[in-house]
Amino acid sequence: MIQTVDFKSTIDRYKVIFFDSFGVIKNYKGLVPGMKDTFDYLEASQKDYYIVTNDASRSPQQLSESFVKLGLDMITPDKIISSGMLAREYLELKVPDGIVAYLGTEDSAHYIESAGRHTIRVKDIDESNINEVNGLVFLDDEGFNWFRDLNKAVNLLRKRNIPAIVANTDYAYPLNTNDVAIAIGGLANMIEHIVGKKFIRFGKPDSQMFMFAYDLVRSKGPISKRNILMVGDTLHTDILGGNKFGLDTVLVFSGNTLPEDAETSITATGIVPTYICDTAVVLK
Amino acid sequence: MIQTVDFKSTIDRYKVIFFDSFGVIKNYKGLVPGMKDTFDYLEASQKDYYIVTNDASRSPQQLSESFVKLGLDMITPDKIISSGMLAREYLELKVPDGIVAYLGTEDSAHYIESAGRHTIRVKDIDESNINEVNGLVFLDDEGFNWFRDLNKAVNLLRKRNIPAIVANTDYAYPLNTNDVAIAIGGLANMIEHIVGKKFIRFGKPDSQMFMFAYDLVRSKGPISKRNILMVGDTLHTDILGGNKFGLDTVLVFSGNTLPEDAETSITATGIVPTYICDTAVVLK
Amino acid sequence: MIQTVDFKSTIDRYKVIFFDSFGVIKNYKGLVPGMKDTFDYLEASQKDYYIVTNDASRSPQQLSESFVKLGLDMITPDKIISSGMLAREYLELKVPDGIVAYLGTEDSAHYIESAGRHTIRVKDIDESNINEVNGLVFLDDEGFNWFRDLNKAVNLLRKRNIPAIVANTDYAYPLNTNDVAIAIGGLANMIEHIVGKKFIRFGKPDSQMFMFAYDLVRSKGPISKRNILMVGDTLHTDILGGNKFGLDTVLVFSGNTLPEDAETSITATGIVPTYICDTAVVLK
Amino acid sequence: MIQTVDFKSTIDRYKVIFFDSFGVIKNYKGLVPGMKDTFDYLEASQKDYYIVTNDASRSPQQLSESFVKLGLDMITPDKIISSGMLAREYLELKVPDGIVAYLGTEDSAHYIESAGRHTIRVKDIDESNINEVNGLVFLDDEGFNWFRDLNKAVNLLRKRNIPAIVANTDYAYPLNTNDVAIAIGGLANMIEHIVGKKFIRFGKPDSQMFMFAYDLVRSKGPISKRNILMVGDTLHTDILGGNKFGLDTVLVFSGNTLPEDAETSITATGIVPTYICDTAVVLK
Repeated sequence: MIQTVDFKSTIDRYKVIFFDSFGVIKNYKGLVPGMKDTFDYLEASQKDYYIVTNDASRSPQQLSESFVKLGLDMITPDKIISSGMLAREYLELKVPDGIVAYLGTEDSAHYIESAGRHTIRVKDIDESNINEVNGLVFLDDEGFNWFRDLNKAVNLLRKRNIPAIVANTDYAYPLNTNDVAIAIGGLANMIEHIVGKKFIRFGKPDSQMFMFAYDLVRSKGPISKRNILMVGDTLHTDILGGNKFGLDTVLVFSGNTLPEDAETSITATGIVPTYICDTAVVLK
Repeated sequence: MIQTVDFKSTIDRYKVIFFDSFGVIKNYKGLVPGMKDTFDYLEASQKDYYIVTNDASRSPQQLSESFVKLGLDMITPDKIISSGMLAREYLELKVPDGIVAYLGTEDSAHYIESAGRHTIRVKDIDESNINEVNGLVFLDDEGFNWFRDLNKAVNLLRKRNIPAIVANTDYAYPLNTNDVAIAIGGLANMIEHIVGKKFIRFGKPDSQMFMFAYDLVRSKGPISKRNILMVGDTLHTDILGGNKFGLDTVLVFSGNTLPEDAETSITATGIVPTYICDTAVVLK
Repeated sequence: MIQTVDFKSTIDRYKVIFFDSFGVIKNYKGLVPGMKDTFDYLEASQKDYYIVTNDASRSPQQLSESFVKLGLDMITPDKIISSGMLAREYLELKVPDGIVAYLGTEDSAHYIESAGRHTIRVKDIDESNINEVNGLVFLDDEGFNWFRDLNKAVNLLRKRNIPAIVANTDYAYPLNTNDVAIAIGGLANMIEHIVGKKFIRFGKPDSQMFMFAYDLVRSKGPISKRNILMVGDTLHTDILGGNKFGLDTVLVFSGNTLPEDAETSITATGIVPTYICDTAVVLK
Repeated sequence: MIQTVDFKSTIDRYKVIFFDSFGVIKNYKGLVPGMKDTFDYLEASQKDYYIVTNDASRSPQQLSESFVKLGLDMITPDKIISSGMLAREYLELKVPDGIVAYLGTEDSAHYIESAGRHTIRVKDIDESNINEVNGLVFLDDEGFNWFRDLNKAVNLLRKRNIPAIVANTDYAYPLNTNDVAIAIGGLANMIEHIVGKKFIRFGKPDSQMFMFAYDLVRSKGPISKRNILMVGDTLHTDILGGNKFGLDTVLVFSGNTLPEDAETSITATGIVPTYICDTAVVLK
């Protein structure tokens, strides 16, 4: 079994910590036990931290509320950087008018509406409005009828040469110990293959996520990438993305990666974290 | 615009003709006008012919009935080779016991049941029977709830190391002039990526389809591949598969390939048909 | 560690045995110790057998000679089915005239010349003859200057819309305990991506290899696929291809697959052999 | 044929212009005629500009010299952002000690040495030094023996779990009107498939290139992405990358994209430039 190091002494070497959310702070069982101590410690030691998440199904406000409910009052909306924020910035810059169609829940849509864009559910697209649709955003795997709306999305992209934005690159996510669910990233990938067009993806491991967080950190004062640590449970998103952006990285075992598989996975993929810790918990 | 040749004088050089079904004999509008003349001519000139189709949603009997309804009485079940027949042969040889789960309509399931296997809809899999499920077959994009059953299929394949058989390799199929529908091949491809396992695919361009047809032809007497012509509307399945198997091939414009795109597609893909004809119609 | 079964009692259930060559009969150290006993036993018990190999660098005659040198006199050229034979059949049927260009040693070219086609090394293509080149065959990773000739091959395929045939689908092959070499299949794959055209691949796991062998077996009398066993060391070629064709399969540990990795690989890929044996040796 | 707009009136709407190098400013024939007028105009109108290039074969100093030789004295090294600079930053941050192996010319190696790292040609790796090699960088397709060194690179990555960095993502580049050459990005892609590990790629369309340039621009004063225009000849790198980063984009016809193919390519890929101009030339 691979050797792990202590999380507290690891983060003590850095000024700013980026955390993945699902699989690090919480998982399908709820809060990872002890994580409140971690954030208390960060606050007490005046280290800055951000939650860098591929979750585009809810706004930073809603994500923050979900942390507060778990007792993490310190995770305010400004601490959260989600792939949905990149999708919203893209729409603001590149889709100046018209309507933006989406696949996902209404919660995820409210999020985009906050960018001042009119939205339409894919199911509501018809001959009367299709020519005003100037973008399609894949937000969440829930909130729509897969058979009807995935087929409609394919035909929308065949008829209108508009950008297709994938706000969550994950292919699947865990539901419980035994089961996973197909994520919107997996559905978007299928549609991309069928229509043959190039979709625009936001989310780790893409550097744009890390850059967004890094910009936020730098807005408070100069800092080197050497002083930032990325903590994640997934080699292909958190660790690969953090490494590529030039950050040091910690792999933890509270989510996607099991301790018994870590060594094999690291060797097979060539994605090597700087450190490996059991969890992101600071032991009191 | 690319130059086409006469279909009748083309087939006159061959003893046996293989036809794709959808896009050649019929399309979303029904029978391609004039195709009855083609089959009358084949019968009159005693040329042998087979329908070689990636349609696994119905049995040869049912497919034959659909041709008879369109006036093509001569297309009897023994003239039809479908990718579903290969899936059935696979199950007979390689899944000797247990239950076979499927995604598709009940019609497609009857088909597999004819191989003497018990079948179960993916939706009916539960803790009491999952350990008896020894194979999963992707048959048709209809007949099930995509959200519920695609997610169940993913988890079935994570829990049971059983073969996953894709009986139709198409990613999408045309519904009418403007619209396409996602096909079971596209859905299967998504699930294969998510579970990371190797699926078994039957259907053109795979040689096994052509071999199945060629075996049938040879059972009536010796024949060289030089005397067999494959007629199809799709470069990536009919023409690529026919070429690779060593047959001469005809591309027709009654289906997937438009006359104005043919030259570009042939150059871009490097898939070159032996002949190009407007349709597979023998003009009287 | 995964449980293995006895090879002799396994093959006793079958009438015909297909063997992969490299990794089963021989490996980089030479003959797998004891394999002579296996072929003596097959001869004594009058079981039919064939060598089904992705090696297109030499003709069946030359491959047979290499077995005879190792003491396996019974492996005559008619026992050998190679992916090169499929490439040759393709050229005979589909490239009736002109010159066939190739990448590989001159030995591999002799092989194609036996199909009655004129051949040319890629390095010898120039303005005076390029318009007569009607096909390009990837035969072996040796016998040419990679920098000069891979670049020439790319430009040949951009200028002439001709079939590109890959006679060995392997991406790499072992040189010794520690090192592998890039195989012609890997080089061909790179060029396919760069030119964007569809190449024609022969070799396991493609069914056409198995069909070629099966046709040979059937020419001696009727036999069911149930009575044929495929023996191989590689999940992705031998076992996947054998399974898909409907044969029972044995994985052995004398080549690509290590005993300690077998279980993980089988679970990860979903490619499940019917049996697992240490080697293909029949113990006396 | 697609409608183009005037380049001068297009850039007049922006404060900062990013230019691709090859295919925009120069091509295989040398300087694109008239480009000196463009840079004179930018200087006269005090617009800021940067060259954003996937060329990692030479340092910014050397690239600048090549522009000066063509008469573009104003393109000083500080105007140049290359994918090699990102590779260098990565090595500085993530490969603190040991030796960095490379494939490419010695010129490209000087580049990495400027990051204070010891370098070694892949051909010089042997048992005595392999354990000190802590990274492999793919820099250029020239300067090494493909057969010997690509094979050595495969085995290096099998023996040492070290990062593999691809400093140029292009698969091929034009040599003249008729011919292309395989680029280091194509070779790296082949090796990535063979070893099965995840390589780290720098270069357009990846956002990290644009971010590097954007950081440079912002260091001179606040600016919105709305005021930056990316000019390029390639949909998949310049235009896709610029769009994704949130910039407006211009496609020009002096390089990879031909006027007669533009409409088809834009529709097929879904990569839509904000503007299309014949060239990046400002007419006097």
